[in-house]
Amino acid sequence: MTVQETADFLRTLDEVLILTHVRPDGDTVGCAAALCRALRGMGKAAYLLPNPEITGTYEPYAASLWAPEGYVPQSVVSVDIAAPNLLPDNALPYKGGICLAIDHHGSQEFFAARTCLDADAAACGEIVYDVIRALGASVTPEIAMALYVAVSTDTGCFVYTNTTARTHRIAAELMDCGIDVGAVNKALFRTKSAVRLAMEARMVADMELYDNGRVVVMSIPLSLCRELHATEADIEELSSLAALVQGTDCGITLRELKPGRVKISLRTGPRVDACAVCRVLGGGGHKAAAGATVEGTMDEVKAGILAAYREVVG
Amino acid sequence: MTVQETADFLRTLDEVLILTHVRPDGDTVGCAAALCRALRGMGKAAYLLPNPEITGTYEPYAASLWAPEGYVPQSVVSVDIAAPNLLPDNALPYKGGICLAIDHHGSQEFFAARTCLDADAAACGEIVYDVIRALGASVTPEIAMALYVAVSTDTGCFVYTNTTARTHRIAAELMDCGIDVGAVNKALFRTKSAVRLAMEARMVADMELYDNGRVVVMSIPLSLCRELHATEADIEELSSLAALVQGTDCGITLRELKPGRVKISLRTGPRVDACAVCRVLGGGGHKAAAGATVEGTMDEVKAGILAAYREVVG
Repeated sequence: MTVQETADFLRTLDEVLILTHVRPDGDTVGCAAALCRALRGMGKAAYLLPNPEITGTYEPYAASLWAPEGYVPQSVVSVDIAAPNLLPDNALPYKGGICLAIDHHGSQEFFAARTCLDADAAACGEIVYDVIRALGASVTPEIAMALYVAVSTDTGCFVYTNTTARTHRIAAELMDCGIDVGAVNKALFRTKSAVRLAMEARMVADMELYDNGRVVVMSIPLSLCRELHATEADIEELSSLAALVQGTDCGITLRELKPGRVKISLRTGPRVDACAVCRVLGGGGHKAAAGATVEGTMDEVKAGILAAYREVVG
Repeated sequence: MTVQETADFLRTLDEVLILTHVRPDGDTVGCAAALCRALRGMGKAAYLLPNPEITGTYEPYAASLWAPEGYVPQSVVSVDIAAPNLLPDNALPYKGGICLAIDHHGSQEFFAARTCLDADAAACGEIVYDVIRALGASVTPEIAMALYVAVSTDTGCFVYTNTTARTHRIAAELMDCGIDVGAVNKALFRTKSAVRLAMEARMVADMELYDNGRVVVMSIPLSLCRELHATEADIEELSSLAALVQGTDCGITLRELKPGRVKISLRTGPRVDACAVCRVLGGGGHKAAAGATVEGTMDEVKAGILAAYREVVG
């Protein structure tokens, strides 16, 4: 569906429930909060399904919008969700009944009745911004801030290769709505806890290089998290660290979610299609940033992703 | 002078020499390169004074524009230079004869015959962009790229508090000129050498906290640079590291330039006026980012800057 068709469809809805994805990031939370507030501004009932995995970083944007227990929606909308296996457990009852998915992942699986997909958008927040404008809803400072969080986090604050002139124009228009992004930028991109700094130092000290240094593998075993008493907020976005190392264009981060279950994150340059590599292991995402969650020990999963890299990149 | 007056004045010039500041950053180099190319595009002779301290990071933007030996300019223009003591040694012969300074530092000392100052501009590159547009010069991809480097480096890629909606709009317009910023962003903001990662780890391990953790002091002694065989490019922009630490809003970096001479860099939040603190020691800059270069041992200079902090902040 086009942005205009999506807006027209949203206009027909009421008593909406908005779904965010597992391990929610700034894009899914920001999109959900902005869309929810815009729908409310049009006089509709709208809530977010509480996401039990949300961290303190993004909770302030969502907490006041959580659906009360027992809320029975008429319509269920998902934002920034590429596949049904990225739904949190408490969203599973709605799995077959999602009437609209708004997303920007090339790996979108079209699980909803209708899909508004723009795989060229740096963030789902860019699409939701256009949808809200097409709705004619007023972009309040709270909506602008939620969308700024969405757009800035998915572009690493306008540094990743997905950033376009359109991304900068949207950021300018959101700032014109009277938001002060200084404190948000500082909190999201310019603050590191002592625990996080220690984790980064250990990940760097223990990193492994492959393919003549073009591939860097960093690991976040459960033992490291326990040793440093790391919270989820300390670990957030650590998957971008591996791609920083000079000479690499394929940063692989392995995070042990629980014994025998590992989340893989890839951040790549133009030479490596991260989505294609992760697809080999059942994952997906974007060309320059993708992921997969697989069963196995850290060593088994490392061997698996390196084999997938060789299979795709040659 | 206004932007229009500056453009009108530049139109009258020919055989121009453009000066950049000591330890040249992306803003001074990008502004100089863009202005030089724009003037050449108008059929004028224009060169940059070779800056012996330029690093490999910024050299590609300037190297082909260096003035040949013996070049005798009719007019000398400085960009992003706040005070005469920031002129490189080889610029000193021109000190009394600078006909125009284009700058964005609140601490500008008005050393030139004419000054185009906008202390609200995040980067001098924003002013130079407006001047080039007022000149009616065409913004070629090479000019756009030089200005993108200027604007992005002075805003930490749109993350620092100096970033405004205008900054984002200029970035969008520059990207519309057909430049691919992906590789530049990766090189400038998403690449760290192994030496740099090791330096950061040491600076973090050895950091000192003051004023209940609100002040973080990090040090780059000559001994550390020698031990890690650090080049100037490994050290560039390291002064933003101290302000990352959670709980601080005053990051102080002390870099030993040579025995007995220390460069102080401050990166601060709204509570601390970095420029006011650095002024106590004869330096200057912006409210959120300022510096000073002073004589003394690392310990003496540390005591001096902490005393200046207490004097200004109380």
